[in-house]
Amino acid sequence: MHLVGMASLTEFSLAETIAVLNRTPATLNALLRGLPNVWVRCNEGNTWSAFDILGHLIFGERTDWMARVRIILEYGEMRPFDPFDRFAQLIESQDKPLERLLDDFARLRRENLAALEALNLQREDLARRGRHPALGVVTLSELLATWAVHDLTHMHQLSRVMANHYRDAVGPWSAYLGVLQCTGHSAP
Amino acid sequence: MHLVGMASLTEFSLAETIAVLNRTPATLNALLRGLPNVWVRCNEGNTWSAFDILGHLIFGERTDWMARVRIILEYGEMRPFDPFDRFAQLIESQDKPLERLLDDFARLRRENLAALEALNLQREDLARRGRHPALGVVTLSELLATWAVHDLTHMHQLSRVMANHYRDAVGPWSAYLGVLQCTGHSAP
Repeated sequence: MHLVGMASLTEFSLAETIAVLNRTPATLNALLRGLPNVWVRCNEGNTWSAFDILGHLIFGERTDWMARVRIILEYGEMRPFDPFDRFAQLIESQDKPLERLLDDFARLRRENLAALEALNLQREDLARRGRHPALGVVTLSELLATWAVHDLTHMHQLSRVMANHYRDAVGPWSAYLGVLQCTGHSAP
Repeated sequence: MHLVGMASLTEFSLAETIAVLNRTPATLNALLRGLPNVWVRCNEGNTWSAFDILGHLIFGERTDWMARVRIILEYGEMRPFDPFDRFAQLIESQDKPLERLLDDFARLRRENLAALEALNLQREDLARRGRHPALGVVTLSELLATWAVHDLTHMHQLSRVMANHYRDAVGPWSAYLGVLQCTGHSAP
């Protein structure tokens, strides 16, 4: 058996994780509010648009991240997390205006981070274990680190999806623009 | 000879391009201002950090984008663009605080977009041609589209560089996080 979570605690800092999580709503707000629909709704043919990505982030705030934190603290490895429905938000958010989604995301993230800080987690709490339905044993620090990197993975995706709209418009410069070489790296 | 710039004008819109260019400084400001140094200064071993990327964007505002617009309008294909020094900013910006770089970038971008709008470019101007020192003949619309996608390529890079800091911290979730599968797509 390997020492679950020992390596992963080396770089982890709760305050530094919250610093990233705190900034994502304002970052997406600055990028997307008032942006012409052609950028917000474009996709790469069969991928999510910026709008869809925002709906996905909201759904995670509503149902996933803090729910999993609480399952680890209350049940440990005894109760696996509920699986995360990666497509649920496509139905729930599709008729809402973008501005409403940006507001919802900011409010939900603020509430979740307040709830996280209220837990007053100590170093030893961060090593507590839970059970992911597919990945097996994970730690609380791994869950919190994943929450932050999940934000970054969707900013990575969003910049790629938007750039694709101008794939032809940039002409021969496409060879120099790394984001246009990215073929995506979605989870299976 | 192919019809330079005909395909690339199909999707291009000057107003939509400016809408993206306008938002990048506030987006980076929301993401980076006040963020702990560990995120701002981390890299992937031999890549740029968020700080370096910001310096590169500033250098482009100072020396590259609008200078090339003016070369196209004044000289057309007769005078090739000056090559863009992709590493110059690493010396110039390295001792400045991040907050100063964010302010500089916002001001320079605002000034450049004001200068661009003052040109009052018409549809026929967008098809005007210039000469890239390596890529050959390009059009003004291709240059402007590239300016916007260049912003997106560096947001794509920035999210990847930051995520790499938590590569170990996420534990087994790394398999699900697309940004951690990205190996970069830098220009040669």
